Amino acid sequence: MTILPLSVLASTARQAARRLAGTPTSVKDAALREAAAVLRSSSAEILEANAADVARALDGGAPPTALDRLRLDERRLEAMAAGLESVADLADPVGEVVEGWTRPNGLTVRRVRVPLGVIGIVYENRPNVTSDAAALCVKSGNATLLRGSGGAIESNRAIAAAMSTGFEKAGLPLGAVQLVEDTRHETVEEFIRMRGAIDCLIPRGGHSLVQLVLERASVPFVLDGDGNCHIYLDASADLDVAERIVVNAKMQRPSVCNAVETLLVHRSIAPVALPRLREALEGVELVGDAATRELLPGIAEASEEDYATEFLSLKLAVAVVADLDAAIEHIARFSSGHSEAIVTTDLAAARRFEREVDAAAVLVNASTRFVDGGELGLGAEIGISTQKLHARGPMGLRELTSVKYVIEGDGQVRP
Amino acid sequence: MTILPLSVLASTARQAARRLAGTPTSVKDAALREAAAVLRSSSAEILEANAADVARALDGGAPPTALDRLRLDERRLEAMAAGLESVADLADPVGEVVEGWTRPNGLTVRRVRVPLGVIGIVYENRPNVTSDAAALCVKSGNATLLRGSGGAIESNRAIAAAMSTGFEKAGLPLGAVQLVEDTRHETVEEFIRMRGAIDCLIPRGGHSLVQLVLERASVPFVLDGDGNCHIYLDASADLDVAERIVVNAKMQRPSVCNAVETLLVHRSIAPVALPRLREALEGVELVGDAATRELLPGIAEASEEDYATEFLSLKLAVAVVADLDAAIEHIARFSSGHSEAIVTTDLAAARRFEREVDAAAVLVNASTRFVDGGELGLGAEIGISTQKLHARGPMGLRELTSVKYVIEGDGQVRP
Repeated sequence: MTILPLSVLASTARQAARRLAGTPTSVKDAALREAAAVLRSSSAEILEANAADVARALDGGAPPTALDRLRLDERRLEAMAAGLESVADLADPVGEVVEGWTRPNGLTVRRVRVPLGVIGIVYENRPNVTSDAAALCVKSGNATLLRGSGGAIESNRAIAAAMSTGFEKAGLPLGAVQLVEDTRHETVEEFIRMRGAIDCLIPRGGHSLVQLVLERASVPFVLDGDGNCHIYLDASADLDVAERIVVNAKMQRPSVCNAVETLLVHRSIAPVALPRLREALEGVELVGDAATRELLPGIAEASEEDYATEFLSLKLAVAVVADLDAAIEHIARFSSGHSEAIVTTDLAAARRFEREVDAAAVLVNASTRFVDGGELGLGAEIGISTQKLHARGPMGLRELTSVKYVIEGDGQVRP
Repeated sequence: MTILPLSVLASTARQAARRLAGTPTSVKDAALREAAAVLRSSSAEILEANAADVARALDGGAPPTALDRLRLDERRLEAMAAGLESVADLADPVGEVVEGWTRPNGLTVRRVRVPLGVIGIVYENRPNVTSDAAALCVKSGNATLLRGSGGAIESNRAIAAAMSTGFEKAGLPLGAVQLVEDTRHETVEEFIRMRGAIDCLIPRGGHSLVQLVLERASVPFVLDGDGNCHIYLDASADLDVAERIVVNAKMQRPSVCNAVETLLVHRSIAPVALPRLREALEGVELVGDAATRELLPGIAEASEEDYATEFLSLKLAVAVVADLDAAIEHIARFSSGHSEAIVTTDLAAARRFEREVDAAAVLVNASTRFVDGGELGLGAEIGISTQKLHARGPMGLRELTSVKYVIEGDGQVRP
């Protein structure tokens, strides 16, 4: 098989992007449904390709979690196909008039949502990203360059081929979605430096990928960053609510970015709250500061490093704080700006926390696990941004668009 | 005078930003008015400082345009003071609820505008930027680090001191606006790589500064890029309207980014339109393609380079095109994505141009010179973005903010 150079893929993508920008919603939706159908009818080929990737991963001694991310089965393929259909059901952001007005001189001004152009996705061994990301990009009128990793290349090829077949059947331009098949490690850097070819890069991967993008990317990007999330139990917290939320935020799915990593407890309730929470959090490794360890004898000391770490596992750092100010200070120091929650019955405390904590999401009396595109009602998400420019928090279809000024007149000139 | 290291300025700015984020609009507005008053009452000191900068520039053999940008007088100082007051009159974007909804489980979700944090401005010898930029940043709740150039350092010091005096009088935190006094060229690079310290960098300068930012910046930035703007005269164009718009867009102020640089003319009207326009554009140097030169004998040939150049002067490249498609193609190839206009009476042509041309602003029957924050009614602008992420087109107060999710519940957890 010939592997096309990145420059060829990029110029095909640019052509496709220009055509996709004007493609009607009905055609894009039909394409997503066709792709779902082809995905289903190609399940044998896709699973066979995936089996080859899994065999290589096994040979390479991949850990069970990595294998689990890589492995596809009928159920997962069906979820991918259904995912394509559910993106077809979402509203198309393209063409939305965000706002508009008329100037005193009669000029009419509208700000209209338009696609970004070409979106580049860099991701690791998760073949489902191939269809999920491409679907969101196509629906928002963008061409996509998918740069998955070599460990999933057979699966990605089979999935991308199925999707392209469906897309072209429905009349989408050739090259709406293209897989970068050169998966040598050094080409990631070439990919993230294709300024002018990629309008927005979305890295979907771990810490080292994020660091590489921060240090080397020359294309515009939106970061799906770490989630070092906190829950603060205020002096006035309802302890039933506190227990429910902390258990949910830590234990329901500890490996994800919106799980809680540090618990801060107001000193006035710590003597009651902490022993109760230790019991409720059975199976969670707790580490704490001196005050916590006095109340929970036997737990290890939390280091500075612990408070700065996104454990992504059943481990929780705990600190007792003097008051709301101290909690806000701790969060300002250690937060990665993802999701921060307070449990309180005190209105003033809730309002201060909402205002003063600087994060993509602040929550009052709710689990941090809700900070997710689906849970918040965005329909689907391509990541959760922890940056402040362009997109912050869960990124849905709208975050894959830009806005264009459309200005109409009758011959007005500037005096 | 001790020059503080960047790291000290940055940590002061971060503290100030946290306090500014919660500062009420009334206090920010009072601070802007106080600063205007101090600017007026300090005019003698400021003009004296400016005279020193001007003297140095003269000694250095600065060209007249550079001297004009640098020089202040009573009238310009008054305009700067009035500018501060007019920013005080604008609506505060902070706290605006952009949208909100309630989830089926009872969670309420709001997206609320918040300041970006610390904004870094890098600019050249234009002392008025010191007050203009700081005013917009303060009004939008951000702390500002101003990195002006050495050639205006005395003026900038005097202006920044006056503003800080006014700000502190009104109770703004110390360090809301800080001038970087180390103006050695090599510190620009240090400045644009202060990741974590600067939440958004806005370079206000020429091509070389933009290139430096593109190549070396590690902080998030919004680019105020080139404006290689086109006007296309459609076959159906009203020639009176065409003449008015082309003359305005080229001649009213040729040195700015929203001036037109290339004129595209449909071949069916070129024989009538071009001679007429040549007359109307007296004083403008025209260069053209072969078809243009046949109709306008004596003008020089336009090179590829000419079509790619933002002249910023009384020079205009001209090309005759076969149809709307060819015009759109030409623009796709050469546009810098700033402002693109069509003159037409044909609705279908207008609609296609609006949809298919990819730029921050597309205009129908209006001068490109309207693409400006003040002209479009944004109140003030800190630049015109030609990028697609975060801000596109004129950037007002809103573009100096981000959005935060505020999620309130009664103890909801994720099933």
